[in-house]
Amino acid sequence: GRGPELSCASFGRIMRPDDANIAGNVHGGTILKMIEEAGAIISTRHCNSQAGEPCVAALARVERTDFLSPMCIGEVANVSAEITYTSRHSVEVQVNVMSENILTGAKKVTNKATLWYVPLSLKNVNKVLEVPPIQYARKEQEDEGKKRYEEQKLDRLETKQRNGDVILPVINPEPHTVGYSQSSLIHLVGPSDCTLLGFVHGGVTMKLMDEVAGIVAARHCKTNIVTASVDAINFHEKIKKGCVITVSGRMTFTSNKSMEIEVFVDADPFVDEPRERYRAVSAFFTYVSLSKEGKPLPVPQLLTETEDEKRRFEEGKGRYLQTKAKRQAQMQQAAQQ
Amino acid sequence: GRGPELSCASFGRIMRPDDANIAGNVHGGTILKMIEEAGAIISTRHCNSQAGEPCVAALARVERTDFLSPMCIGEVANVSAEITYTSRHSVEVQVNVMSENILTGAKKVTNKATLWYVPLSLKNVNKVLEVPPIQYARKEQEDEGKKRYEEQKLDRLETKQRNGDVILPVINPEPHTVGYSQSSLIHLVGPSDCTLLGFVHGGVTMKLMDEVAGIVAARHCKTNIVTASVDAINFHEKIKKGCVITVSGRMTFTSNKSMEIEVFVDADPFVDEPRERYRAVSAFFTYVSLSKEGKPLPVPQLLTETEDEKRRFEEGKGRYLQTKAKRQAQMQQAAQQ
Amino acid sequence: GRGPELSCASFGRIMRPDDANIAGNVHGGTILKMIEEAGAIISTRHCNSQAGEPCVAALARVERTDFLSPMCIGEVANVSAEITYTSRHSVEVQVNVMSENILTGAKKVTNKATLWYVPLSLKNVNKVLEVPPIQYARKEQEDEGKKRYEEQKLDRLETKQRNGDVILPVINPEPHTVGYSQSSLIHLVGPSDCTLLGFVHGGVTMKLMDEVAGIVAARHCKTNIVTASVDAINFHEKIKKGCVITVSGRMTFTSNKSMEIEVFVDADPFVDEPRERYRAVSAFFTYVSLSKEGKPLPVPQLLTETEDEKRRFEEGKGRYLQTKAKRQAQMQQAAQQ
Repeated sequence: GRGPELSCASFGRIMRPDDANIAGNVHGGTILKMIEEAGAIISTRHCNSQAGEPCVAALARVERTDFLSPMCIGEVANVSAEITYTSRHSVEVQVNVMSENILTGAKKVTNKATLWYVPLSLKNVNKVLEVPPIQYARKEQEDEGKKRYEEQKLDRLETKQRNGDVILPVINPEPHTVGYSQSSLIHLVGPSDCTLLGFVHGGVTMKLMDEVAGIVAARHCKTNIVTASVDAINFHEKIKKGCVITVSGRMTFTSNKSMEIEVFVDADPFVDEPRERYRAVSAFFTYVSLSKEGKPLPVPQLLTETEDEKRRFEEGKGRYLQTKAKRQAQMQQAAQQ
Repeated sequence: GRGPELSCASFGRIMRPDDANIAGNVHGGTILKMIEEAGAIISTRHCNSQAGEPCVAALARVERTDFLSPMCIGEVANVSAEITYTSRHSVEVQVNVMSENILTGAKKVTNKATLWYVPLSLKNVNKVLEVPPIQYARKEQEDEGKKRYEEQKLDRLETKQRNGDVILPVINPEPHTVGYSQSSLIHLVGPSDCTLLGFVHGGVTMKLMDEVAGIVAARHCKTNIVTASVDAINFHEKIKKGCVITVSGRMTFTSNKSMEIEVFVDADPFVDEPRERYRAVSAFFTYVSLSKEGKPLPVPQLLTETEDEKRRFEEGKGRYLQTKAKRQAQMQQAAQQ
Repeated sequence: GRGPELSCASFGRIMRPDDANIAGNVHGGTILKMIEEAGAIISTRHCNSQAGEPCVAALARVERTDFLSPMCIGEVANVSAEITYTSRHSVEVQVNVMSENILTGAKKVTNKATLWYVPLSLKNVNKVLEVPPIQYARKEQEDEGKKRYEEQKLDRLETKQRNGDVILPVINPEPHTVGYSQSSLIHLVGPSDCTLLGFVHGGVTMKLMDEVAGIVAARHCKTNIVTASVDAINFHEKIKKGCVITVSGRMTFTSNKSMEIEVFVDADPFVDEPRERYRAVSAFFTYVSLSKEGKPLPVPQLLTETEDEKRRFEEGKGRYLQTKAKRQAQMQQAAQQ
């Protein structure tokens, strides 16, 4: 065993502009991520503190947590974690987060969280291992911990039975249709996404577009895919810091070995500005599917259903044939030289 | 002026696991982002090379580019950029990307891209400044550049007129309805998102959930919002590396000064695995809207339309009142001590 | 005042795939960045501990540091920092880094570093403020600190006078020559790279320097390489948000089992400012090549061609022999105790 000093730990980090919204308040999500990292470290450490099968503590549950005061850019987040209860197969960790203004010395409790972890074997991820028991200073601590354990266990069982609700309608569940693979993501434009002028770098936009197009392609053919080409992209409209951008993609055309995906970028300048959502960029990405040896694989044909889908397929075919002809002409020219 | 040596630049970066898919192929989007960064630097530098108003070069267009061979994790991406043409108000940059396997020394052309930048004044972002002309080694270079300039100008005009198509139906464009603010994002699970077991860190999932919930809240009230609390979250199902996760959120309840958002996380293990999409996590996030002074602002009431929406609103109200009662009980208890 | 408990602090973080090379060894640059963040927090905290003008501690110098054992993905980096000396205008911070395998409990010292910070006024960045004195447990601690302070002050003055050298491109270099492995990268300074004063964190700069030095080393020996040590680095010139920094490296010396790489950081305040490109930092990094079992491999000898290259090789040899002699003296001293 490695002794009892291991049952608590503390960590700190300076909050950066990317951790916060445009008003300078650190995102709750940034704090939740730090809390969970601290919990994972301390519980994995504890579960491996006795000789036995090596394991990794996996998060099973986070209790309700309240954010008591906002944290700001430039402040230090101090995260301290302590193991407060162990059952046979789970560990309860209490994590406290304090914001510290290192200029004024002011410290505030940001939030307190309780997390439950379960040790999974490193060799067999489906095997839950036993947790070494901790020592309690007082008997009541163990009793109260046991009560919390029983309560959360009940709640976990309950929610497991709640059946799955869906937010966005699955437009077409038929494989290889346009609706089957279409995808979209939203992204809150942060400071690091922007130039000195406060507008999104074109490269950041293109990276998000490729991300969505890649997911559309992978959903369609369910194999390893790579970007083969990107058609000309025009950036008519700037996108400002603080906007939410929606990047959406749908498949327009498939040849034997390639897929064409149309991607739209819409900007939603919803804070501070009266302007409505607008189309900022659109483009066509072409993907190919690769085998494990890196050879191109055949691609399932896109099933078009509506008139619009059929028209877009024909337009995509036109672009495909045009590009093919151009490439052949270049190769002949090169061969003649 | 700072002289002609500034019209070209080259640099390298090692490709990391997060730059690539699970097969180890670097995302096209990672490469596009590097290309654009090189283009932005070289053209901003050029446009500021003569005394005058300071400016930042903004991306106006990227010409079609083909990805000629895949790049892999551990390889060095060598990006070199050169200014090849200047018109009165725009700069053409040619960027070449080579992958270099530093272990074998093998180098391959990954792709070549042509980008057009426009200098915008740092003081007035709507003012396009003049571009200092470059010197051409041969007269033909200028003529060919001018031809490329005219061609892309035509294409830019054309696409500007193409009207906006929509992929995902806007379910309900009426402000303050559930459909108006509901949002979703997709995220491809990368290596840095995962534990040693190859499953997503709970903290990474919670950060994405908070991101979506925050966007829903901001769309609803169009002000600066912060996370006030998160209800207990249970992690029943693990999410594996390489999955695509869809995180979607909808507003369920509003009180005078708070908004409750339900968030779902669905995992799509679409490569390599026969398993269907499954619900991995769900949770309720509560947000408040803050004024510039950090004071809570009133929140517009959520407009419920369907029976389900009304039921969820009532359930949310139940949770709200329960939490409020619990908090008051705690405060009374604290006051008595 | 906020009392003496604030003069030490500790931090931890799990190492992720992006923190490491493809062999799984954490980059020296990742560790340097964590060290500097810890140092910046503790010294900013200390310098604001007495009523007075608010200030931010800026990194002025890092003493030579040796990387004693490699850290791996999945391990926890434990960073602890302590203020060990204060002069009127500077703070000495001692930082220790331990790698902890949370599965086996094994802990190893990764490295120890000494950093010097200077408090700059938040209102006027060119004003250096006074540092509140610390209490020493024993008089000798203060005397030894004063000696270290005087030594580093001399060295800082010296390097300030060393003139700026430039790395020029070589067209078709022969393997193992200086030109063959020399490398550079450019980075646009974003908001998250900067302190509250709007200047780049020293840790961010060191991480980029290690990245370039690592590419130079890998290009030379085409094997898995790790940072062995970093010579003292002086930060004479601040780098502002919005600058483009060019980081370039060239090999200066090889022994049988190590490579010395000189790295330059040049800042280009290309928008907004009349100032010319300037040399912000320079330093020497030493790398070793490791076999798959983690054993040091022989390194191909550097082929020097020009007079300058031969001179730099001899200077590198001098530094190498001096370090070796110092280490042997320390080992003998330790053996005698």
